[in-house]
Amino acid sequence: MVLYQLLRQHPEVDDINLYDHKLTENEKLSKMVPAFYADSTEVQPYTPDAIMADNQMVFFATSAGVTSQLSRPYIAAGFPVIDLSGDLRLNDEDEYQRWYHKPSASRQAMTQAHYGLADFESAAGKKYVANPGCYATATLLGLAPLIQHDLIDLDTIIVDAKSGTSGAGKNPAQSTHFTQANDNLQIYKPNQHQHIPEIMLELQSWNHNVKAIQFMTTLIPITRGIMSTIYAKVKPGVDGDQINQAYEETYSDKSFVNYMGEHLPDIKQVVGTNNCNIGVVYNPVTNTVMADSVIDNLLKGAAGQAVQNFNQMFNYKETSGLELQTFLP
Amino acid sequence: MVLYQLLRQHPEVDDINLYDHKLTENEKLSKMVPAFYADSTEVQPYTPDAIMADNQMVFFATSAGVTSQLSRPYIAAGFPVIDLSGDLRLNDEDEYQRWYHKPSASRQAMTQAHYGLADFESAAGKKYVANPGCYATATLLGLAPLIQHDLIDLDTIIVDAKSGTSGAGKNPAQSTHFTQANDNLQIYKPNQHQHIPEIMLELQSWNHNVKAIQFMTTLIPITRGIMSTIYAKVKPGVDGDQINQAYEETYSDKSFVNYMGEHLPDIKQVVGTNNCNIGVVYNPVTNTVMADSVIDNLLKGAAGQAVQNFNQMFNYKETSGLELQTFLP
Amino acid sequence: MVLYQLLRQHPEVDDINLYDHKLTENEKLSKMVPAFYADSTEVQPYTPDAIMADNQMVFFATSAGVTSQLSRPYIAAGFPVIDLSGDLRLNDEDEYQRWYHKPSASRQAMTQAHYGLADFESAAGKKYVANPGCYATATLLGLAPLIQHDLIDLDTIIVDAKSGTSGAGKNPAQSTHFTQANDNLQIYKPNQHQHIPEIMLELQSWNHNVKAIQFMTTLIPITRGIMSTIYAKVKPGVDGDQINQAYEETYSDKSFVNYMGEHLPDIKQVVGTNNCNIGVVYNPVTNTVMADSVIDNLLKGAAGQAVQNFNQMFNYKETSGLELQTFLP
Amino acid sequence: MVLYQLLRQHPEVDDINLYDHKLTENEKLSKMVPAFYADSTEVQPYTPDAIMADNQMVFFATSAGVTSQLSRPYIAAGFPVIDLSGDLRLNDEDEYQRWYHKPSASRQAMTQAHYGLADFESAAGKKYVANPGCYATATLLGLAPLIQHDLIDLDTIIVDAKSGTSGAGKNPAQSTHFTQANDNLQIYKPNQHQHIPEIMLELQSWNHNVKAIQFMTTLIPITRGIMSTIYAKVKPGVDGDQINQAYEETYSDKSFVNYMGEHLPDIKQVVGTNNCNIGVVYNPVTNTVMADSVIDNLLKGAAGQAVQNFNQMFNYKETSGLELQTFLP
Repeated sequence: MVLYQLLRQHPEVDDINLYDHKLTENEKLSKMVPAFYADSTEVQPYTPDAIMADNQMVFFATSAGVTSQLSRPYIAAGFPVIDLSGDLRLNDEDEYQRWYHKPSASRQAMTQAHYGLADFESAAGKKYVANPGCYATATLLGLAPLIQHDLIDLDTIIVDAKSGTSGAGKNPAQSTHFTQANDNLQIYKPNQHQHIPEIMLELQSWNHNVKAIQFMTTLIPITRGIMSTIYAKVKPGVDGDQINQAYEETYSDKSFVNYMGEHLPDIKQVVGTNNCNIGVVYNPVTNTVMADSVIDNLLKGAAGQAVQNFNQMFNYKETSGLELQTFLP
Repeated sequence: MVLYQLLRQHPEVDDINLYDHKLTENEKLSKMVPAFYADSTEVQPYTPDAIMADNQMVFFATSAGVTSQLSRPYIAAGFPVIDLSGDLRLNDEDEYQRWYHKPSASRQAMTQAHYGLADFESAAGKKYVANPGCYATATLLGLAPLIQHDLIDLDTIIVDAKSGTSGAGKNPAQSTHFTQANDNLQIYKPNQHQHIPEIMLELQSWNHNVKAIQFMTTLIPITRGIMSTIYAKVKPGVDGDQINQAYEETYSDKSFVNYMGEHLPDIKQVVGTNNCNIGVVYNPVTNTVMADSVIDNLLKGAAGQAVQNFNQMFNYKETSGLELQTFLP
Repeated sequence: MVLYQLLRQHPEVDDINLYDHKLTENEKLSKMVPAFYADSTEVQPYTPDAIMADNQMVFFATSAGVTSQLSRPYIAAGFPVIDLSGDLRLNDEDEYQRWYHKPSASRQAMTQAHYGLADFESAAGKKYVANPGCYATATLLGLAPLIQHDLIDLDTIIVDAKSGTSGAGKNPAQSTHFTQANDNLQIYKPNQHQHIPEIMLELQSWNHNVKAIQFMTTLIPITRGIMSTIYAKVKPGVDGDQINQAYEETYSDKSFVNYMGEHLPDIKQVVGTNNCNIGVVYNPVTNTVMADSVIDNLLKGAAGQAVQNFNQMFNYKETSGLELQTFLP
Repeated sequence: MVLYQLLRQHPEVDDINLYDHKLTENEKLSKMVPAFYADSTEVQPYTPDAIMADNQMVFFATSAGVTSQLSRPYIAAGFPVIDLSGDLRLNDEDEYQRWYHKPSASRQAMTQAHYGLADFESAAGKKYVANPGCYATATLLGLAPLIQHDLIDLDTIIVDAKSGTSGAGKNPAQSTHFTQANDNLQIYKPNQHQHIPEIMLELQSWNHNVKAIQFMTTLIPITRGIMSTIYAKVKPGVDGDQINQAYEETYSDKSFVNYMGEHLPDIKQVVGTNNCNIGVVYNPVTNTVMADSVIDNLLKGAAGQAVQNFNQMFNYKETSGLELQTFLP
């Protein structure tokens, strides 16, 4: 839905076709998504051949376990795909099944897919982009300078991540029932969140000595937004200046990552935008660095980063269609 | 759940037995309701004969359409029942089916049941109490002095009632999904809420000239609480003093209704208590009286009023077990 | 802030200068409004002569009682102004003082200002636009077809309006303290809200027989959005079809008003847009029509309508800079 | 306010007198605290001699920097005090000034005060009880078994604590303005929260080798409740069973601490009660233990623990006046 909104106002996008693999005949979008009451677009049944004939690329916004099946003909044909699901983010079948509890795509498909953490690895020239998960994006962007500049004890990474309920999708559930979620905090999937393995893979691509991270997720009573609070012990001799410099260097030229020094961002600063804002405080008493990394889970954590990958893939301006403003107050 | 909490601390209640008509063998309450993790009580299968043998009365907190069936043996035996469902609040089979869309109890059962608006009709000596609905309670208490003192044009009653999500029960649904309910207001069941007919019956028992009311319900992003905002044109010659006096007279001796004059109560004032707080402002420019009536939908609007009826039924002190304090801040 | 965001992305706006009448020298916007941390714009001290020399028009977003003073030189010079305050919305000095409790602008200034309810009265050719209040906008758009088509008994209009806290501005207060506002509903300013007189003036411009309306405002625990629930008795002989037709006719050609028939809009449908969505249900049992009119109070209720008036004033496309998308989920 | 509510229903408390050091003559409580509209109690001016003559003990619920002054005559007279402020929780004047930025009580007064972490140190026989801070209570109860049983590397303690807005008191501020706090998370006082030194003192009383903790506080959009999420590396050889056993042993006989094993408690489980619920998950991959400790900040984190200390001080049953039920749903 958010992806469709972004593409509708993207200057390089002329036509958008919508498909649903559960449809057998056309249905009005306005009927399927009441919020689009004023939109006369028809959603079409899913037919890979017609899709490849009628379009120049495809976005997948399907559930885990579904995309791995649906994506096969496109991979075979070398047709450009940006995949918002987690199905091809890992590169090992067993690992996928362990974290997702579903049948996986083939190892070959997984290893050939490009993990599109767009601020670090360009999707230019790629055919299949596995768009990162929301928690993974906030956490990786918060950790990158510390890992890449070798500033922390790799054995001490702790991530206390918090997310609003829109990350859980549109289907009602007990934990996101208003009566349960309002006025509450709920820790869920302790050490078991499926974004852990993709975070590990990316960290290891930066430094193969990273062995494990402690990663906890808490459901908070807001609709949109993620705050990833990251802790690690710094290496002997590292001080606040070095940390600051690493973040400055890493992010000074990135369009969508704002390093704010010791000004710790709150979530509302980024909701409505494709930005990741990061604040960092070093505590010399505990030799611990704390990074506060916030994103809009539906934009930078999903549809926004997908469009950023789309821009890279087709050599459009990276910020094209993403010049969004914060949704304040 | 709230009823069970009230009864556990009720000074006149020694033993509480819990039954569930879906069980075939005993099950721990702590397993059925995670919030009671520390409670070792067993919930028992539902068997009317044993229930009547082992207890002095029974509360029904079952769904609409279920209680009408389950309650039969108790009615036949003249065993005391307080029924929190809506199944025996009306007195006509067709009317019930029209508003509830379910098979009704018998007309005889319905007409014999006592509608337990506890601040107005005592349950003393009654065998079967149909405990009023939450919206009905807030609305009837707000309207009573105006109707009983014949102060308003009966053709002009408009009720704009707002409720938190706990009124919709514990089962997740689209409208109470946090992502949908948060930051939102949703009007639902316009002119079709099933509390309308019980309000009409009670109003007509006070003045048979009441023909209809305009009654709208809006779902608001809070967990507990109802505000019923009531409007009506006053009769020619009626002024603010007369209105004030009618409310004073009606409620000066009621334990659970606080008339606050022109101080309009907010919802948090009553959450956690069995109180109904009412503020009233007369507007001489429009000849309109506005009453703001607030309750905790789970207490005065359900379990609290049920205990109040229980106290009346067994001649206990009316406030017994209901000396509750507001849950502020 | 929202106005500045809209103007920054308006295709017809090249330069925006910001002024603050409390400054004596330039100050960085990023310092005054932390949310604009990435904006290097300087806010300038307020000097009318320089402002008129350097700009083609001015927006006022100052407080009640301030704009009436600051606007004088522009009125004298015939310089284009769009004024978001309430200072020149009325046309009588005593009436202004009665509702705003502040010294008023001159009667001449007030009567010459154009009340810019943009979907009904074009600002083309106007020099001074008094941009309507948020409650007034939602209420007037909801009532217009009923009044203009003479469908209701003018003596029976009741408006139960609900607003989020952003309408109260950015300064903390007791009623908008999170601890007080969360989980709560608070009625405020009963029959005394300062938007009542501007609603009355506009209604009377449509039908001079409207004498008074009952208008209540309730603070709800959301940040953005207004729902104005409007009730009135229909005239004898009027039925649902006529009502439906009146809304269809009135709004079929308006860019920003969506009439949705009996589908009652919720607030989130319009938040983030300049739309007013309206649903209407006629109740033949009470002869009462209920209109549910929702807007984003900061857009259609303030900055969005101001830009719409700006587009009319300068003959730009009416939707220019206002092609906004709903902020869902 | 919550303290007053608890004492009103405490079976051992006959009379409660209220005093305010800012009053010069009696004032009705109902006027000072609108929520107590129905309470005819008079609040009296503050006069230590009369207070000691008329009462058997005194509770202080005054601000930091105030109690240190007001408490002097009681300390001099050996009159029983339970002090909810932070003024006498530390034992060093410089340390107090460093964290509180206010003049401190005398070192003598501070060292003689009893730090009343009621589940661990009984207040029986004490004259002056410094009631612990809310964050300190949740954090210390979550950490105690790990420290007391010597299970963790003391150098690796990280606390990510989250609190609702009621912890910030009743005065409106920017960060607790609904428009700012709703839909948001805000980290505040990084490494500077004034509860850090009292946590350190207590930890060191259990194990003097604790040198520092990393302690962060985040403001969350709920009214009541604290979740303290605690991380630490376990010592070599320690496993999940040992951790589980330590918590079992520590808390099996404590009335108000519920150890729930791997069932991680959410905040709503304890709101309305004097309970601290704790869940613990050990992650063998990272050798990290995570404890999730939740309390109602106004009860266990303030007034509830104060009453628990009161019960200990006067040899009443520890749970007297504290048999509270969760406020669900």
